[in-house]
Amino acid sequence: MNSDYQIVATDPASRARLGKLTLARGVVETPVFMPVGTQATVKTMTPEELQGLGARIILANTYHLFLRPGVEIIQTLGGLHRFMNWPGLILTDSGGFQIFSLAKLRTLNEEGVLFRSHLNGAAHFLTPEKVIALQEGFDTDILICLDECPAHVVSEDYVVRSGALTLRWAKRCQQARTREDKPLFAVVQGGMWPQHRREQAQAMVAEGFDGYAIGGLSVGEDKETREAILDVTVPELPVDQPRYLMGVGTPEDLVEGVARGVDMFDCVLPTRNARNGMALTRFGRVVIKNAEHASSPLPLDEDCGCYTCSRYSRAYLRHLFVAREILAYRLLTIHNLFYYLELMAAMRQSLAQGRFGEFRQAFYGQRHDGGADNG
Amino acid sequence: MNSDYQIVATDPASRARLGKLTLARGVVETPVFMPVGTQATVKTMTPEELQGLGARIILANTYHLFLRPGVEIIQTLGGLHRFMNWPGLILTDSGGFQIFSLAKLRTLNEEGVLFRSHLNGAAHFLTPEKVIALQEGFDTDILICLDECPAHVVSEDYVVRSGALTLRWAKRCQQARTREDKPLFAVVQGGMWPQHRREQAQAMVAEGFDGYAIGGLSVGEDKETREAILDVTVPELPVDQPRYLMGVGTPEDLVEGVARGVDMFDCVLPTRNARNGMALTRFGRVVIKNAEHASSPLPLDEDCGCYTCSRYSRAYLRHLFVAREILAYRLLTIHNLFYYLELMAAMRQSLAQGRFGEFRQAFYGQRHDGGADNG
Repeated sequence: MNSDYQIVATDPASRARLGKLTLARGVVETPVFMPVGTQATVKTMTPEELQGLGARIILANTYHLFLRPGVEIIQTLGGLHRFMNWPGLILTDSGGFQIFSLAKLRTLNEEGVLFRSHLNGAAHFLTPEKVIALQEGFDTDILICLDECPAHVVSEDYVVRSGALTLRWAKRCQQARTREDKPLFAVVQGGMWPQHRREQAQAMVAEGFDGYAIGGLSVGEDKETREAILDVTVPELPVDQPRYLMGVGTPEDLVEGVARGVDMFDCVLPTRNARNGMALTRFGRVVIKNAEHASSPLPLDEDCGCYTCSRYSRAYLRHLFVAREILAYRLLTIHNLFYYLELMAAMRQSLAQGRFGEFRQAFYGQRHDGGADNG
Repeated sequence: MNSDYQIVATDPASRARLGKLTLARGVVETPVFMPVGTQATVKTMTPEELQGLGARIILANTYHLFLRPGVEIIQTLGGLHRFMNWPGLILTDSGGFQIFSLAKLRTLNEEGVLFRSHLNGAAHFLTPEKVIALQEGFDTDILICLDECPAHVVSEDYVVRSGALTLRWAKRCQQARTREDKPLFAVVQGGMWPQHRREQAQAMVAEGFDGYAIGGLSVGEDKETREAILDVTVPELPVDQPRYLMGVGTPEDLVEGVARGVDMFDCVLPTRNARNGMALTRFGRVVIKNAEHASSPLPLDEDCGCYTCSRYSRAYLRHLFVAREILAYRLLTIHNLFYYLELMAAMRQSLAQGRFGEFRQAFYGQRHDGGADNG
């Protein structure tokens, strides 16, 4: 075992579970949300601020860090934790998603993927082995196998062939690893076909990874499809290993993901929406630019205990945002991440107390109340 | 007396003095540097961070706040301190400098100045009376009279006529004030003509303001001219009242200003240069983008005690800056403001200990050492 995952409590009415994931550098209580630190920084935040919000594990992007500053510089500076001064844990993705969404002119073959950097057009060839070497070079805490993430609209035939390639790549990643102390997760793809999701999960589980990521969701499908895919995929995964839903999602997605047995989440939504002026609250969304907030003395959420809500009015936040002041992006990011991390903490607490069903009901109850812009 | 300014110590070999300025909301030790909070925020910083760096008084721009969000919103929210959650002191400028540098199509007459907003072209007419009403509406701690700040290149005749108008406007500001608890400073102009500076200072002093700002410097003139103007202007100002050098300057300017009897400074240089990737250190400038820093494990300044220098390498700062990450602007701003505020604290300490001359010598000694990009 490269990671020790223990189930602490389960919800009898759903697949939700409370767990403890023990890694070499520390322990993570699950279900957990991982703020996204794409370029070795969770945008706008210091590490101390992240810790203050309760973040214990963040995600960093292998594709971005490979291109800039490069693994050599990160290694020279003592690994990604020291480079960015983050005392918590780090999961690195494989770069697969970015290669297929950001990079230009990619060409896939059995060996790997040739692509051009979105930054400067330089050509790079990444293989499963290289992607593992990069993540081991970053010295992060959880590694992910290279996968192909097909677009939402590809054919069933493409999904089947892509899944087979992703499986062969996953085996090569397993062979290539040299650090047995770092858990390696496989990525389950399979598009929106329940049968291919099941088969892909079974095939990956047969290889025996340390955890399983569910990829290829939140790529344009509707919420019902996403939940249906989780409903068929999770039961194929080992009960005693962590499950990570990649790149998802809204507060509702987190609650529904937990109910369906997911342990780990990451998403740019709270941080990206903050920089676009959207606050996420228990009552829904607040678009801070709206004129209705121009002279409002109210905080984003009167019952929120975050730094932003306890000190700043909507009027001030709106002023900063309209004036394009960096403090606006900071304050909204703090609020959104606080809300996400508190939401996860509340789910963990409800699981510990055997009240997850009640929690889920109350969560939807609040969102039907007024006070936000998503009316 | 609307402000109580006390001299605590003086340097026998220069005009430098250590002082204490007591205002209704608090005390400021001088010489002091005021970070610039143009739009009701010192760019990138929270109030707590500013306080942590030792900032006690900041400057806010009347022109900017008048245009956006407007004085009504700030009043509704309880004044500028509460609006921006700043527990320290605030000096507001008159808006004059911005009207003459940022606004479009301005037309000056005896009554005031008509201009178009640089934001949306809307026409506004500001008078001395309106500028005082705005600052009293913001409820800030030190107010400045409306002045005309002529360009560096205007004729001597223009400077004389402009100075006479600025004097008449200052008298009207004095008449217009309703809050006797808020010190009102006049602005001494006079271009680069020593005689006009002297006469302008004498005329303003004859009116009896609570303090005197020296405007129209750092507008393109060289350092020697700037210092020569201070040498002729300061001796005309009352010894027992605060002197404020507007919009100046470099670390050298601060030291030379203090030596010439200036008590208060503001400048965008430490904050603006930070966002442009330039760190200011005791040894000179560090341009963080330079390739030489790409894998450097060193901090910006090994002996600096700021948050940034005690935690982050030049390699990481360069990565963040090249990747245009907001954290880069934050970390460089923290360092630069820490350096400026420490520099002022060191000058105050040297004055208290009767060692200002030694301090000044050591300051220039360090700047001739290596290690920075200004070689």
